[in-house]
Amino acid sequence: MSTHNQAQSALYPGSFDPPTLGHLDIIRRAARIFRRLLVGVLWNADKNACFSPEERMTMLREATAGIAGVEIVSFDGLLVHYLQREGLRVVVRGIRAYTDFESELQMALLNRALLPDMETLFMIPAPEYGIISSRRVLEIASLGGEVSHMVPPNVAAMLARRFPARQDSE
Amino acid sequence: MSTHNQAQSALYPGSFDPPTLGHLDIIRRAARIFRRLLVGVLWNADKNACFSPEERMTMLREATAGIAGVEIVSFDGLLVHYLQREGLRVVVRGIRAYTDFESELQMALLNRALLPDMETLFMIPAPEYGIISSRRVLEIASLGGEVSHMVPPNVAAMLARRFPARQDSE
Amino acid sequence: MSTHNQAQSALYPGSFDPPTLGHLDIIRRAARIFRRLLVGVLWNADKNACFSPEERMTMLREATAGIAGVEIVSFDGLLVHYLQREGLRVVVRGIRAYTDFESELQMALLNRALLPDMETLFMIPAPEYGIISSRRVLEIASLGGEVSHMVPPNVAAMLARRFPARQDSE
Amino acid sequence: MSTHNQAQSALYPGSFDPPTLGHLDIIRRAARIFRRLLVGVLWNADKNACFSPEERMTMLREATAGIAGVEIVSFDGLLVHYLQREGLRVVVRGIRAYTDFESELQMALLNRALLPDMETLFMIPAPEYGIISSRRVLEIASLGGEVSHMVPPNVAAMLARRFPARQDSE
Amino acid sequence: MSTHNQAQSALYPGSFDPPTLGHLDIIRRAARIFRRLLVGVLWNADKNACFSPEERMTMLREATAGIAGVEIVSFDGLLVHYLQREGLRVVVRGIRAYTDFESELQMALLNRALLPDMETLFMIPAPEYGIISSRRVLEIASLGGEVSHMVPPNVAAMLARRFPARQDSE
Amino acid sequence: MSTHNQAQSALYPGSFDPPTLGHLDIIRRAARIFRRLLVGVLWNADKNACFSPEERMTMLREATAGIAGVEIVSFDGLLVHYLQREGLRVVVRGIRAYTDFESELQMALLNRALLPDMETLFMIPAPEYGIISSRRVLEIASLGGEVSHMVPPNVAAMLARRFPARQDSE
Repeated sequence: MSTHNQAQSALYPGSFDPPTLGHLDIIRRAARIFRRLLVGVLWNADKNACFSPEERMTMLREATAGIAGVEIVSFDGLLVHYLQREGLRVVVRGIRAYTDFESELQMALLNRALLPDMETLFMIPAPEYGIISSRRVLEIASLGGEVSHMVPPNVAAMLARRFPARQDSE
Repeated sequence: MSTHNQAQSALYPGSFDPPTLGHLDIIRRAARIFRRLLVGVLWNADKNACFSPEERMTMLREATAGIAGVEIVSFDGLLVHYLQREGLRVVVRGIRAYTDFESELQMALLNRALLPDMETLFMIPAPEYGIISSRRVLEIASLGGEVSHMVPPNVAAMLARRFPARQDSE
Repeated sequence: MSTHNQAQSALYPGSFDPPTLGHLDIIRRAARIFRRLLVGVLWNADKNACFSPEERMTMLREATAGIAGVEIVSFDGLLVHYLQREGLRVVVRGIRAYTDFESELQMALLNRALLPDMETLFMIPAPEYGIISSRRVLEIASLGGEVSHMVPPNVAAMLARRFPARQDSE
Repeated sequence: MSTHNQAQSALYPGSFDPPTLGHLDIIRRAARIFRRLLVGVLWNADKNACFSPEERMTMLREATAGIAGVEIVSFDGLLVHYLQREGLRVVVRGIRAYTDFESELQMALLNRALLPDMETLFMIPAPEYGIISSRRVLEIASLGGEVSHMVPPNVAAMLARRFPARQDSE
Repeated sequence: MSTHNQAQSALYPGSFDPPTLGHLDIIRRAARIFRRLLVGVLWNADKNACFSPEERMTMLREATAGIAGVEIVSFDGLLVHYLQREGLRVVVRGIRAYTDFESELQMALLNRALLPDMETLFMIPAPEYGIISSRRVLEIASLGGEVSHMVPPNVAAMLARRFPARQDSE
Repeated sequence: MSTHNQAQSALYPGSFDPPTLGHLDIIRRAARIFRRLLVGVLWNADKNACFSPEERMTMLREATAGIAGVEIVSFDGLLVHYLQREGLRVVVRGIRAYTDFESELQMALLNRALLPDMETLFMIPAPEYGIISSRRVLEIASLGGEVSHMVPPNVAAMLARRFPARQDSE
């Protein structure tokens, strides 16, 4: 494989359950660097997922419609198997915080042990998105809290349908 | 500037006083991803530097002779001014450890505040290089310790000339 | 709302399942600073809670009987909704350790994003209480270990009733 | 001393060399909680300070002119001696990041060992100010970089006088 | 108890579900220091364990067959109760990373609070084993990934039987 | 060298400028485990040391007079050269906090790269000593603060002579 083709394509894998403004920030930044950015929804990541992989792919497709070079894909099983099948070698991950860093670093080294010519590149979201995670979004939305500053509008609409307003909140 | 050109070129800035096998590992990995990798010796980084910027550039040039696409450059002043002058937007940094991560993350966000369309990409060296730093190399070499497993051979030779063997050390 | 009234009242929210000497230490310290300290038992915090919210409120009421200005309350749903309903703006949290700090900092910023004029104040327990957590207390008590140095006497009594001594231990 | 008076007054100590928007953020937040907020410039903190204590006090006085309840003071020697002399018991500190947290926690416990009835309350600045530190401001300003998004206008003016624009920088 | 006997024996407790090359590295290092090293499989550590305690003990026995002074034991309940019953006072633990360190430090202090004359000694595995954990091994093996560089050969064989190759994975 | 002799002797190296109650705590704990504990004063550790190596050795000798098996030694140059000369293979280090852990872990791995059969064992001081460091002791003592709860009595006396009471403090 030509090493000079590596920067043409990168994979941004994740659960995206649901996609947040933090994910969108990383996608926008990575799409400026790589000609083709695959956003890969991990199919089997979480058995207790709130949204189905199809719903997550749809939300991502809508939210990234205006960003050139982005493709929404999905995969299951090991990340390195998917990279091998697709001939990809560059993985992009966002890091928001320190405990993130710990598990991300270990995962990057584990993946490289399995597929030595792959690289994981870590990117930093804008500080205002650093506190946003899918888990927190679901927690807040499920308790009737406001999440419109944390997710794209189409995701906010999906969350509003999934968690109808509770009478007792507020 | 065309955003699709961004992945053509990246800058790997540092003091490289002296270059280590950890630096070489990052250079090799980044050169597989970017068509052109500038390795930038920071001129004014440290007033107490052991090697002059010219010596550091020479050591880097020798050690990276076999890696395609690598150019050794130098700069002083603010990193973002250099990026602007050269039309570069992608910076590569290696992260070895946690306190690294803290200051690297802050520096990346500060630089982005000064030059919003730049990105810092963090890469992880191989685990066996994670413990190597220029400062530790200098410490050990200055006390007569063995550093040939921590630096390229040409750097080891430079260090041996800089710190002639002491009689008292083993 | 008069900002000068803010320091009159503060909320110390938590699961308190069960209350520990570390919690009591923070309560005592915060009660010296704020005229009125509400200790808020989070009703829905943990589905697998060992003690019911009523039991936890009773344990807290007994253990804080001698501390002026302390009131035991409970709430469910989002913390910021409770703060809004009660006109509270200051939240107190104890930090024992680093991974605590990470999630506490994120939670504080998330809450402030939802209710901009609220503040979270972090306090440090005495070092000897830094290692005590409700989860560890339950673990040790459930395995027949001694916890009387980790919880107030009334809580130790509750735990002894909940986890009768096992024959095989010791 | 009446414990209920404690929340009337708090001290926010620091070097403020120079004051940043991060410091101003903490001052504004703390002034909403405490009736009287002393901002204390540490006289002997740093022998290599860029600005004299008087200059730092003037910059702080100008920048906090519109915030009710704020007084700019200075002290040297041990913080706990100043607290004792002034009858203060509450100290406010901002925490921006993890390594901050480490040294701040140790300092808070050390101070409490010297003056048992004092408390340190930690506050979190807005995320966009989390990356700003006086040291970085001085570094960037001394290299001809833009700092107007990091400090109040009067401090930016002081820095511009201290570090006249260099010809070579962009 | 004679304090000089303490270094004769040490306990290395863990779940070992399954044993990894990282565990083996610590066992080899600790066995060079202590005359008798008990490797203790925690019986009740994890209800969702992949291997039974007997299977884990067998795997450990096979993998440590060549290391002098090693005995494989098992225990349930509190670690300190087992130490007391066996007259042991020294516990060995491997630390791979930072979040490890946090919970290990708290556990060590908690155990010492329960049994004041015990000590926990922390050892560092070789860097190449620092990224290996039993959980990651199970994850990768269950998805059809290669783990032969992460576990001893006998454990790799057990994993291959437990997770027969999936047709779809590469 | 017989590996079974390793636990007979261990080295506890440090600057001890001055020795603190935290150091004494580690010495007491390590002396219960190892038959012979060498406490090694690093001769060239810090050019700005407050006390001479001889003074530090004297303070350590006095403070450890009652602890069996402890010998006070000194060394300069690389730790691994000293270990080789003395036939030692086990080094003991106390860890008080997280940033400690980072540099200690790197140092342990670096030393092992230079001397493969050596091991560094990390021990945890009692929580109340976790906040004490030589540097803080010197800072507080030099500003006229009370340090008698942080150092042994003989060290407190040395510090009082080195930093006579200032008129202005208190």
